[in-house]
Amino acid sequence: MNALLTDLYELNMAASYLRRGMHAPATFSLFVRSLPARRGFLVAAGLEDCLDFLESFGFSEAGLAYARDSLGFEERDLEAFRRLRFTGDVWAVPEGTVVLAGEPLLEVTAPMAEAQLVETFLLNQVTFQTTVASKAARCRVAARGRDLVDFAFRRTQGIEAGLAAARLSAMVGFAATSNVEAARRFGLRAAGTMAHSYIEAFPTEAEAFGAFADDFPGRTTFLVDTYDTLAGVRAVIELIRRRHLAEGLAVRLDSGDLGELAGQARALLDGAGLHQVRILASGGLDELDIDDLVRAGAPIDAFGVGTKMGVSADHPYLDTAYKLVQLGDRPVMKLSAGKVSAPGPKQVFRRGRMEDVIGLRSEAPPAGSAPLLVPVMTGGRRVLGRERLEAARGRFEADLARLPEPALDLRAPSGPQPVASAALVELTEQTRERLAAIRQGGAG
Amino acid sequence: MNALLTDLYELNMAASYLRRGMHAPATFSLFVRSLPARRGFLVAAGLEDCLDFLESFGFSEAGLAYARDSLGFEERDLEAFRRLRFTGDVWAVPEGTVVLAGEPLLEVTAPMAEAQLVETFLLNQVTFQTTVASKAARCRVAARGRDLVDFAFRRTQGIEAGLAAARLSAMVGFAATSNVEAARRFGLRAAGTMAHSYIEAFPTEAEAFGAFADDFPGRTTFLVDTYDTLAGVRAVIELIRRRHLAEGLAVRLDSGDLGELAGQARALLDGAGLHQVRILASGGLDELDIDDLVRAGAPIDAFGVGTKMGVSADHPYLDTAYKLVQLGDRPVMKLSAGKVSAPGPKQVFRRGRMEDVIGLRSEAPPAGSAPLLVPVMTGGRRVLGRERLEAARGRFEADLARLPEPALDLRAPSGPQPVASAALVELTEQTRERLAAIRQGGAG
Repeated sequence: MNALLTDLYELNMAASYLRRGMHAPATFSLFVRSLPARRGFLVAAGLEDCLDFLESFGFSEAGLAYARDSLGFEERDLEAFRRLRFTGDVWAVPEGTVVLAGEPLLEVTAPMAEAQLVETFLLNQVTFQTTVASKAARCRVAARGRDLVDFAFRRTQGIEAGLAAARLSAMVGFAATSNVEAARRFGLRAAGTMAHSYIEAFPTEAEAFGAFADDFPGRTTFLVDTYDTLAGVRAVIELIRRRHLAEGLAVRLDSGDLGELAGQARALLDGAGLHQVRILASGGLDELDIDDLVRAGAPIDAFGVGTKMGVSADHPYLDTAYKLVQLGDRPVMKLSAGKVSAPGPKQVFRRGRMEDVIGLRSEAPPAGSAPLLVPVMTGGRRVLGRERLEAARGRFEADLARLPEPALDLRAPSGPQPVASAALVELTEQTRERLAAIRQGGAG
Repeated sequence: MNALLTDLYELNMAASYLRRGMHAPATFSLFVRSLPARRGFLVAAGLEDCLDFLESFGFSEAGLAYARDSLGFEERDLEAFRRLRFTGDVWAVPEGTVVLAGEPLLEVTAPMAEAQLVETFLLNQVTFQTTVASKAARCRVAARGRDLVDFAFRRTQGIEAGLAAARLSAMVGFAATSNVEAARRFGLRAAGTMAHSYIEAFPTEAEAFGAFADDFPGRTTFLVDTYDTLAGVRAVIELIRRRHLAEGLAVRLDSGDLGELAGQARALLDGAGLHQVRILASGGLDELDIDDLVRAGAPIDAFGVGTKMGVSADHPYLDTAYKLVQLGDRPVMKLSAGKVSAPGPKQVFRRGRMEDVIGLRSEAPPAGSAPLLVPVMTGGRRVLGRERLEAARGRFEADLARLPEPALDLRAPSGPQPVASAALVELTEQTRERLAAIRQGGAG
């Protein structure tokens, strides 16, 4: 893929390393420094797109010409760029895994220039996809088993983001998506009803309902709030009786007091013996709205969740970092105010209900623990093929069941806190002392 | 472009219209219902990508096969889909124009099925791009003439979003972007320095600074906060003196109290006679941070603005709608609770300092006013070619100068409020009455 999908400083640094023959393998660690206040856990995502990028990484001739003509790079730089492929190793937490603050999601080990050039893309995909998967997971927690449908496509931050949101929400258990291309591309269930404009395109609401039932027998969700919600429900009941409709029937509420209207709609439907007609609610919902409706016992069978999930509206990014932790055989760390990072390639050892230990990759796992990071790429090639979404979904389900209850609180969560292993603490202390000596003028 | 980039309900409705021969031209109006509390104005954006989409709109054979095999559409639907192109007319507010709540950004008039199928893509692009352009414009207001550089790429919601953020921030006056591919694609100035990892890759900070100055003479920004910011500045001064460096020099502060450190760095530099060395500040900044720093008189020459601009962190979407306002010769409106829309194709008449009147497209402009919406597409073809970014930038500059001061307040803005014309008020009342009659069982 296009190596210009990066920040200019990555090109500058890479050119400098290449000119100077600085080819020592570097390890960079990608992690989330801290969680937003309302997040008790995160869901790792973005890895598969990162691996696609790394496997196809390279400069095009057009990209090289631009680097020469507009960015001022020299012929020797272009020669080196032209030969560049990603030849490194990657360890990562597979998609769908629940992760916590400070835990590496992905670690790259590659010659310095390569590891540096891919930073921007890797950060972008892991940050964005983990943000949205984690937000969608909160909807999943709130819905307590009721169906969720992704309605986000129309207001995500771009088309690519909309496709990703459909995939990521399916990863954490959404039942379907309205996004047709995403459904096709990722093998998801597509779901869709009608818009208010459809109702308005007919002389009366009843005629619109009748036309839709004719055209889509067996999969008919009636949008009932265009003029008056309960009058709409009565029109649906009338139509179902007159036409003897029986299968795949639902009403959708999209405005007003959804809890109140759902109760009234359910009473009307049940009063007409139409217990099988489902109620779908939508309209600017987020996980807190869903939580309120479910706790209040609103008889809603499925929620359409759109914009606020798709952009992770309350916190649309994560505080991710991609930090150099080892260069050659030398552990490295950053001492900038408020941005201290720990040195060395790492591993996360998990046991029990997410009692995680962040340690060194070279450590023996503590008794009864399993490592979260696995080798996913060696020498620039995937260890396995592109993973199926079902695998990530299964992983998320298993982890969700394992999360302690306070981590699932949507308003004031108290998630598990990983601790550092003794070996990591010791290496951090040693590295800090060595760097302090450098600051005072000594050699590194 | 791929017609499956839509919501399933659009396909359902389109198929129904096509089967029923409902080809009457429909007009849909795309607008922002209300502004977030902190926004005194918006900057229209996304139009050019919408027009690209409309010009190339169509179903692929793969898309049709999916519609048949997985979505249950019939052969007659596929035949109709296969022939479908976008043949409609579009009126729109050109990119870079300042717009207010309720003002149509774009109006589509096309046979019902076409106008409906393109809804999702148009909403996506206009919502996202207007959100980000408006957020970047706030940074522009805050910076009061100091340079701004887009650093957002690593944490935007996807790669497409990162490319768009670079273009949109340039549209509202950012001086440069770190995003190399965006710079190439849109003809922007690329800017870049070094990362902390570069410093860490050398035995000492001084050696890293020296290597970078060797490699990039004339365009050297030194990142000084890896170990200790002021020690870093002293190392830069020492290097500049020893090497007699003179041009394109700057230091970058990326952590700590930026105002305080900028003052101290400036004093050190000035004390050494290095008045020409600029100071660039970055690190999680948003427009309010920039505003605080500028008001406090911090000697910062340029701000690197990243994530919070690129995702519009405080409000990552807008409350956009795409509403049917006319069908054939019949004005239409929606009466759903809290979502009432006004009928008829519209125009915005602007005069003075954004004293806007929202009226009907068919109205004569009030004296001294100019219309905001212009015809941009007729019969599915652009009226003009793809517009150059400079035109949008010029439009934004002119509008920014025209905005009243209270609209520019970043914390509690009081923007101009458009009013409805007498003709629009009258049509709204008539339409409401006609629809109320329908609700009570009469014909439309």
